[in-house]
Amino acid sequence: MDKFLRVNMTTKELKTEAAPEKYAALGGRGLTSQFVLDEVPATCEPLGPFNKLIFAPGLLSGTNAPSSGRMSCGGKSPLTGGIKESNSGGTPSQKLANLGYKAVVIEGKATAGELYLLKLTADGAELLPADYLAGKGGYETVRVLQEKYGKKTAVIFIGPAGEMQMPSAGIGASNIEGLGDRYFGRGGMGAVMGSKGLKAIVIDAPKTFDVPVKDKERFMAASKKFAKILLDHPVTGQGLPAYGTNVLMNIINEAGTLPTRNFTRGRFDDANMVGGESLAEACNARGGKATHACHPGCVMRCSNVFILPDGTQMGKIEYETAWGFGPNAEINSLDVVGELNYICNDAGLDTIEAGATLGVLMEAGVVPFGDGKAAIEAFKEVAKGTPLGRVIGAGATFAGKLYGITRVPTVKGQAIPAYDPRSCRGNGVTYATTPMGADHTAGYAVTANILRVGGFVDPTKDEGQVDLSRNLQIATAAVDSTGLCLFVAFAVLDNPEALPTVVEMLNAMYGLSLTGDDVVALGMSILRAEREFNKKAGFTKEDDRLPEFFYNEELAPHNTKFALKDELDEVMNF
Amino acid sequence: MDKFLRVNMTTKELKTEAAPEKYAALGGRGLTSQFVLDEVPATCEPLGPFNKLIFAPGLLSGTNAPSSGRMSCGGKSPLTGGIKESNSGGTPSQKLANLGYKAVVIEGKATAGELYLLKLTADGAELLPADYLAGKGGYETVRVLQEKYGKKTAVIFIGPAGEMQMPSAGIGASNIEGLGDRYFGRGGMGAVMGSKGLKAIVIDAPKTFDVPVKDKERFMAASKKFAKILLDHPVTGQGLPAYGTNVLMNIINEAGTLPTRNFTRGRFDDANMVGGESLAEACNARGGKATHACHPGCVMRCSNVFILPDGTQMGKIEYETAWGFGPNAEINSLDVVGELNYICNDAGLDTIEAGATLGVLMEAGVVPFGDGKAAIEAFKEVAKGTPLGRVIGAGATFAGKLYGITRVPTVKGQAIPAYDPRSCRGNGVTYATTPMGADHTAGYAVTANILRVGGFVDPTKDEGQVDLSRNLQIATAAVDSTGLCLFVAFAVLDNPEALPTVVEMLNAMYGLSLTGDDVVALGMSILRAEREFNKKAGFTKEDDRLPEFFYNEELAPHNTKFALKDELDEVMNF
Repeated sequence: MDKFLRVNMTTKELKTEAAPEKYAALGGRGLTSQFVLDEVPATCEPLGPFNKLIFAPGLLSGTNAPSSGRMSCGGKSPLTGGIKESNSGGTPSQKLANLGYKAVVIEGKATAGELYLLKLTADGAELLPADYLAGKGGYETVRVLQEKYGKKTAVIFIGPAGEMQMPSAGIGASNIEGLGDRYFGRGGMGAVMGSKGLKAIVIDAPKTFDVPVKDKERFMAASKKFAKILLDHPVTGQGLPAYGTNVLMNIINEAGTLPTRNFTRGRFDDANMVGGESLAEACNARGGKATHACHPGCVMRCSNVFILPDGTQMGKIEYETAWGFGPNAEINSLDVVGELNYICNDAGLDTIEAGATLGVLMEAGVVPFGDGKAAIEAFKEVAKGTPLGRVIGAGATFAGKLYGITRVPTVKGQAIPAYDPRSCRGNGVTYATTPMGADHTAGYAVTANILRVGGFVDPTKDEGQVDLSRNLQIATAAVDSTGLCLFVAFAVLDNPEALPTVVEMLNAMYGLSLTGDDVVALGMSILRAEREFNKKAGFTKEDDRLPEFFYNEELAPHNTKFALKDELDEVMNF
Repeated sequence: MDKFLRVNMTTKELKTEAAPEKYAALGGRGLTSQFVLDEVPATCEPLGPFNKLIFAPGLLSGTNAPSSGRMSCGGKSPLTGGIKESNSGGTPSQKLANLGYKAVVIEGKATAGELYLLKLTADGAELLPADYLAGKGGYETVRVLQEKYGKKTAVIFIGPAGEMQMPSAGIGASNIEGLGDRYFGRGGMGAVMGSKGLKAIVIDAPKTFDVPVKDKERFMAASKKFAKILLDHPVTGQGLPAYGTNVLMNIINEAGTLPTRNFTRGRFDDANMVGGESLAEACNARGGKATHACHPGCVMRCSNVFILPDGTQMGKIEYETAWGFGPNAEINSLDVVGELNYICNDAGLDTIEAGATLGVLMEAGVVPFGDGKAAIEAFKEVAKGTPLGRVIGAGATFAGKLYGITRVPTVKGQAIPAYDPRSCRGNGVTYATTPMGADHTAGYAVTANILRVGGFVDPTKDEGQVDLSRNLQIATAAVDSTGLCLFVAFAVLDNPEALPTVVEMLNAMYGLSLTGDDVVALGMSILRAEREFNKKAGFTKEDDRLPEFFYNEELAPHNTKFALKDELDEVMNF
């Protein structure tokens, strides 16, 4: 894993080089964020020739470390105007690592109308015309490419939304079943890929777990130990495997912090109808899969395969997706949620942004609250690129602007998901201050606020939230560099042996002697790099605030407002 | 002119008070900008209850000083997110001043769906339900209100675009003929008025020129002298009265800095077909008016009354409007320009923003370049509030974002008009640095760059542009405070007696002993206040730059790029 591939979409030149020395110890988010700071002009037009898109497997990706198949995608976001690291599971990370690539960088910009495919094999890299894929949905793109290049190839792709450069277009990734349902969802990186004229990357690697490891025996021992740690924790060993992330629906509803009807209250009477238990039941009843690994070697298996009413095998429904198309839209049908999810996956749209956008458009009266059929009809416009489709694909901030709506749950232009900041204040601090724009995964304070993992911090009080979010953001940035799924954090927070075991895997793999402190230092340096980029791009502390309505409207049932303002500036004080 | 009216749209409370002491010497932009800095939280939601809308006649408004009927409207802009002063002619300023109002402030926010009319007479102020005006176009709104309250009343209003809170909605004003064709066009202040639930302000004042003046004789002498100065200058005494602002079309085209086909070249072969000479001919031939004062007592009479092919009396076509719907869209028909202008005036949309948006949407393929019929059909969607109408009403930045277009001529979210910054670089400096977002009126360097008024600074070179723009921006801020039309600047720049005469009018009116230096100091203090607001709102020097494409794409026929970057930070060094 020491090759750097640079693909210049202007000149069509491909250059494979040794990874620059300064990136030798970096992988995943640590690599993408430093690279973006180094090579992308912070004030550049995100869809212009000066932005760069970088894919980097995590440091442990491509080994048999459990749940280590995550990849980071970095660049300047057309949605936030700031730095972006978007993270996905699926099959590409391990395959890319096994071809020896530390990073693939897409530079320049093809002439408008050109469309290309990047093919990576053990023999090297090739850029091929891909006009036959123009306008194709994500599911079909993966199907066509795996038929052409082999069922075991991994595929990274964009759908029509990315080709049309919609600000909330994501980049998709194939899953184990060959479904295009995994996503580098957030921040509009699909639009960046579309702007460059790149439809897909096919990765044909014979191996999945064979990335070189310095001390194999030591590594295997640590890896085995880490798998056991994950399986022993109630969340990663039981909750997630049984019901997936959507196990959260009833928990968050019970906690009264489930944003309902575009963030006007914190509880939805019909939450259970779109929750994890109902989802598992439906998956089992229809011949889908209630539990499922998004990439080989994941022991948490939090994913699922849902079957649409017409029999279409769809891939997973995540909690945040079920929330956005469910409670946030006052929709209580899992089938409607599934169909909206399918439309978004196929068009290539971030489902979190899409769910928040639906809530805003419902508030604007474009689609009635609770009307699943109307929502589905509206979302079919996305792939057609009609004005309504463009509005949906633009995301919640733009939709709010166009319709004069002020209850728009976004920070730095990116939608707040599934946990209301007024009664899950630790998450509110993360939404406001992460350099990514509102993002629950950047510092998931739901752990201590709601799940009582890693201690307890009262979610309706301000005390302790700043420290909680800071520590989580630092830890998360480090985890996002390893290729490990963020969900390992549940175990890391509760089991003192977990972090040393991760460090042991890294040391055994790279012949290093890192300590836990080095991991913390890495997390801090990543956040510093990201903040520096955003500062250069023109961000100030005013961008580290929640929208006005969170400070002025009470949320039932706790009837609390968000109040943290200047304290937020202390989050990044380290 | 010493009353302050505060209208609280939340409580419906009206409060008339003496103007606060600190605003005693301020009027127009000087007053609105200082007030907005003082009372509007810089980070507030522009369409929320904490924004305030302030109308203030200029210091000389309501007297018989020539061409002094301009009013400023201030607030936080939903288009730029920064401070906004939008300036309009028409009949309201003199009438409001003659009722003794220094300012009218609209605060709070009515419940969604409520619609009100503010009626101002010599007897006081009254807030009345105005549901009967809901959805009505600008022309009809003025017609209905003047029928109800008298032909001589002045009307300030919003169209459907403002009611729907579209980001580029303007606030309209009645002209002498009772047409709703004058506009506080820029920055989306119509959306702010719409958000407050205020459809219109009717001003019923018996007098137009009778605002108290301390030394009447001295004032009359200065006023008479100033009228002569204006009439003696070739631009204000001949060019503008003969052909209106559209006299510029052929001049700017000849200069090669007429943005054509969405800013892809600087010359349009058919410019003459939509230029001032053709316009005057058409106005005369159809029984319109080739020259026309927008308010009583204007000696420059740069306005016109155009008659649409179906006989509709429409009001004026300005140069920037003719440019946006003409060359920028590769449309060469004055009738199409007129009809698009009519649609925008009636819907209540800024025609400069609309013209730039049309260019962007043409580049996106939504409307074909040059297709006037398709453009008209598209623009009819605005008043209907369809998704396409919302996109148009949102302005060029949002339209570009939705369609993945990177050639979007905006600064701080507001469209650049009618003079390409690559070959009219002084204007480029103004676009980039004015706190208003791109605005040619904020520091009209066309004077020295193209018209050789106030000297000559080569428009295709960088030298001298920063100083030119700085001086013009300071002078403009001061002029915008007087109520004088900005066009008096042509005379002020060339005739050394002009500025002292303006000062003499102010001194005679208010019993002061100001000097020319005080006027410069006023201009500086206004810009400082505006910059301070924007800084508090989160603006940085990165916001004082032109879009990337101006730095990277050459503009024919001069084949020049814009190059000023760091030098732009020197503009506000004073």
